[in-house]
Amino acid sequence: MVYITRREQFSAAHRLFNPAWSGEKNALVFGKCNNPNGHGHNYDLEVTVAGDPPADTGMVMDLKKLSDLLQAEIIDKVDHKHLNFDVAFLNGVIPTAENMAIAFWKILAPKIHEGKLVSIKLYESENNLVEYRGE
Amino acid sequence: MVYITRREQFSAAHRLFNPAWSGEKNALVFGKCNNPNGHGHNYDLEVTVAGDPPADTGMVMDLKKLSDLLQAEIIDKVDHKHLNFDVAFLNGVIPTAENMAIAFWKILAPKIHEGKLVSIKLYESENNLVEYRGE
Amino acid sequence: MVYITRREQFSAAHRLFNPAWSGEKNALVFGKCNNPNGHGHNYDLEVTVAGDPPADTGMVMDLKKLSDLLQAEIIDKVDHKHLNFDVAFLNGVIPTAENMAIAFWKILAPKIHEGKLVSIKLYESENNLVEYRGE
Amino acid sequence: MVYITRREQFSAAHRLFNPAWSGEKNALVFGKCNNPNGHGHNYDLEVTVAGDPPADTGMVMDLKKLSDLLQAEIIDKVDHKHLNFDVAFLNGVIPTAENMAIAFWKILAPKIHEGKLVSIKLYESENNLVEYRGE
Amino acid sequence: MVYITRREQFSAAHRLFNPAWSGEKNALVFGKCNNPNGHGHNYDLEVTVAGDPPADTGMVMDLKKLSDLLQAEIIDKVDHKHLNFDVAFLNGVIPTAENMAIAFWKILAPKIHEGKLVSIKLYESENNLVEYRGE
Amino acid sequence: MVYITRREQFSAAHRLFNPAWSGEKNALVFGKCNNPNGHGHNYDLEVTVAGDPPADTGMVMDLKKLSDLLQAEIIDKVDHKHLNFDVAFLNGVIPTAENMAIAFWKILAPKIHEGKLVSIKLYESENNLVEYRGE
Repeated sequence: MVYITRREQFSAAHRLFNPAWSGEKNALVFGKCNNPNGHGHNYDLEVTVAGDPPADTGMVMDLKKLSDLLQAEIIDKVDHKHLNFDVAFLNGVIPTAENMAIAFWKILAPKIHEGKLVSIKLYESENNLVEYRGE
Repeated sequence: MVYITRREQFSAAHRLFNPAWSGEKNALVFGKCNNPNGHGHNYDLEVTVAGDPPADTGMVMDLKKLSDLLQAEIIDKVDHKHLNFDVAFLNGVIPTAENMAIAFWKILAPKIHEGKLVSIKLYESENNLVEYRGE
Repeated sequence: MVYITRREQFSAAHRLFNPAWSGEKNALVFGKCNNPNGHGHNYDLEVTVAGDPPADTGMVMDLKKLSDLLQAEIIDKVDHKHLNFDVAFLNGVIPTAENMAIAFWKILAPKIHEGKLVSIKLYESENNLVEYRGE
Repeated sequence: MVYITRREQFSAAHRLFNPAWSGEKNALVFGKCNNPNGHGHNYDLEVTVAGDPPADTGMVMDLKKLSDLLQAEIIDKVDHKHLNFDVAFLNGVIPTAENMAIAFWKILAPKIHEGKLVSIKLYESENNLVEYRGE
Repeated sequence: MVYITRREQFSAAHRLFNPAWSGEKNALVFGKCNNPNGHGHNYDLEVTVAGDPPADTGMVMDLKKLSDLLQAEIIDKVDHKHLNFDVAFLNGVIPTAENMAIAFWKILAPKIHEGKLVSIKLYESENNLVEYRGE
Repeated sequence: MVYITRREQFSAAHRLFNPAWSGEKNALVFGKCNNPNGHGHNYDLEVTVAGDPPADTGMVMDLKKLSDLLQAEIIDKVDHKHLNFDVAFLNGVIPTAENMAIAFWKILAPKIHEGKLVSIKLYESENNLVEYRGE
């Protein structure tokens, strides 16, 4: 079994905010990430698929195909968007990196047929990173 | 003369938009950067000061002091903000990287007294960068 | 379960040296890392915590809190220090990256209560890295 | 147990091509990687060894020794070479990153005696990466 | 005046070789870069344009347009190619990074009309870089 | 004219300290960089040479030769050393990055005969950088 990883990038705005809470509690819990007008990031997305490379291609899955899938299913929907308002599959979700990685998994896992999805890493900055492995 | 550079980072939302134009023209000129709800970036800011290091310190300017100045004058005002709504010194400015670098220069140049400001670089992503040298 | 990672950095001097050995054996085993006056590095520290993000916050643990914990418990004690002389919790320890990662784990594991510590990575340079997972 | 990783780099040309297939099928499956005259990459190789650091050295394995081993067994044989023509141990192998990582594992695993080999990562670019763990 | 820079990437094979010289002299001068079957790199290309951002756009030149120009004029012609055989505009040129940067300049300078081309940087690896400024 | 740049790296300890000053003044001016037992860094050194690439080689200067020169004249003397005690050419110099870049220039400028030295950049960390251009 070999693990292959494709990195993609997108830029988006978001605001951490729980509508069930008061403004005070939101400010206390989410700090500057609760800024009412939002803020934003360049996100790095790393998606890992594991499988057995067939002898005739030597590739678990064509990384170009994986890139195209990520582009169509994720990047086109979140790049240069506001994650709280513009993304149907994040509707009603607090757009933390944790929740975004889980949402991306739900979309991608059923669409990967050569090998299987094993990890989604999402970097919000060079210092902050989350990973979801479907566990 | 030696050039010293300090890198700082901030995360912000913005929208490219000229209020004097129609929605159609804005969309045509600014493309996906014109998304009505905005998008965002992790910005890298690199500020360069040139001077003659005095013999008794060997430093053009203490980089810790330069970092503190950048933090107080720039980062605290733009980090985790929406650049179109939350930043007084960008009021009425289309927040392109070019205009931001010029605005940062106007703030910083008069406050640097050991050596002089010679360059402001602003990275909007790992692929897009602007530099202003006060020319 | 989601894994969250925070990166911090520090700069320190150290010398690899086993006081139970002769100078010759130290030089033979540790090579240029045994230089009597020491040498130094910029270290990158990556700490990973795993947990289930609660629905009301969407965060395993506030990464700002994790950063504050790392700053207070590790960075403030090792940054701009000589690891052989200035750090109480490394007293009597040969300051290899392996031993440092284990020492950091012992300090951090009992202090993390939202989620649990699962990995400490320590980069001594862009080419050399160790990881300790508490195994 | 501690995991130690050494990064090395090499530059090589290759062409993805299955001699059992027609030119059309090769072009269809491998796309621009099938360019008849080949293309090339700077490869980053990361090799991870896991073991228990002995008390008298505090090192799983001297990273300098691991670097020397990688240099002699891998880098000297693939750096500034054409992987389809110049590398004996890749003879008859389609030089995908997957197949290269497996080939490197077969060479390195029997030669590592302090600790054991647990992972080989091979970056073909900053966006494409494979990992083989001997599974 | 503001300087804007766009980074693009491509992967290519090449061989340093002067057909007017003997094999011995080629090997002596170009060393392992003279390997008969060639080798390859991931190249980073950074193109800088300087100009005065008009008040109504705040942009020297739309970086998306600059990216499209680089893609059409350079990247599509060199990416996944062998620079000695597959690139018309490098015909008869020893494909050193120096000569490539000069060749790129000749193509791009006449095609940039908003602002003017001031620098082409070409990274052959993270350690080797050339820059041409049209001087 | 083309500018070529070679990057090298070294790891060293240092202490910022002016022996003509009291301990109090040293602590005040140099802050945590004045720690009596020293601290350390991984330094990145980037050396730029400008020249006209001869038609028969297409190279300003063989980057391998530049690398060998940097290795012999600089890296071998500072790598895994304490800059205050172990480096003859820094004797009596406060080892700030500014002073180190100037000292490197004095050594390298007279030894570069193909093209001429135009810039020495020294990164003390990913956030702190100095450049000396011989002005």
